[in-house]
Amino acid sequence: MFRPRLALSPQLRLARVMRSSSGVATPKAPYWAVIFTSERTGVEEGYDEMAERMVELAKKQPGFLGVESARDTVGITVSYWRSEEDIAHWKAHGAHLMAQKKGKRDWYRRYTTRICRVERDYSFEKP
Amino acid sequence: MFRPRLALSPQLRLARVMRSSSGVATPKAPYWAVIFTSERTGVEEGYDEMAERMVELAKKQPGFLGVESARDTVGITVSYWRSEEDIAHWKAHGAHLMAQKKGKRDWYRRYTTRICRVERDYSFEKP
Repeated sequence: MFRPRLALSPQLRLARVMRSSSGVATPKAPYWAVIFTSERTGVEEGYDEMAERMVELAKKQPGFLGVESARDTVGITVSYWRSEEDIAHWKAHGAHLMAQKKGKRDWYRRYTTRICRVERDYSFEKP
Repeated sequence: MFRPRLALSPQLRLARVMRSSSGVATPKAPYWAVIFTSERTGVEEGYDEMAERMVELAKKQPGFLGVESARDTVGITVSYWRSEEDIAHWKAHGAHLMAQKKGKRDWYRRYTTRICRVERDYSFEKP
């Protein structure tokens, strides 16, 4: 049976690809995290589509473990990776380089990227 | 001259204590980051006040470098520290232990805490 695809807003689609209800299931530490904190310009055009495309592309990269993101005044996106080399590989990806360039030109007033080794972690979940 | 204090909402006061417009100014790497990702229950009572109190208290701890936070579906708070020992010290602080206990009982459906060594970072700011 044919089921029409629901038309979701880019924001909602982005939320879907970036979040799972139980957080990102990362393996036993050590692994790596990239903390990206940013403040946006007022420019919205093209942003949601690009963010969504980059998440979909990141998912296909070697060593990608997951990503989660939140924004109010400041935006924080954390992506998780198997190794530092995997992070370097993704940073140098052609389509990602283009997105970074557009980000600087149009979407971000400022940002900071921090490359981190996750030494340990612990979780809580309500029974 | 007497200037009356403006009455700000807890959320706005919290935003003020947690964010600066140019992000958290961390020192040259290596330093440490604690990535706290969470999903809330529906319980709001006491949360904003406690979050604000914990930020104010964290600021007074040895080795505290800064904190930033964003929430939409998921909440992400990243605090920055000089050393792993400073993080352990803050985790074991009496008032913070009480807040953690209340958090598990009332405010969080689930959370994950990741202790990370920031190996390097870079920033961009619009001229």
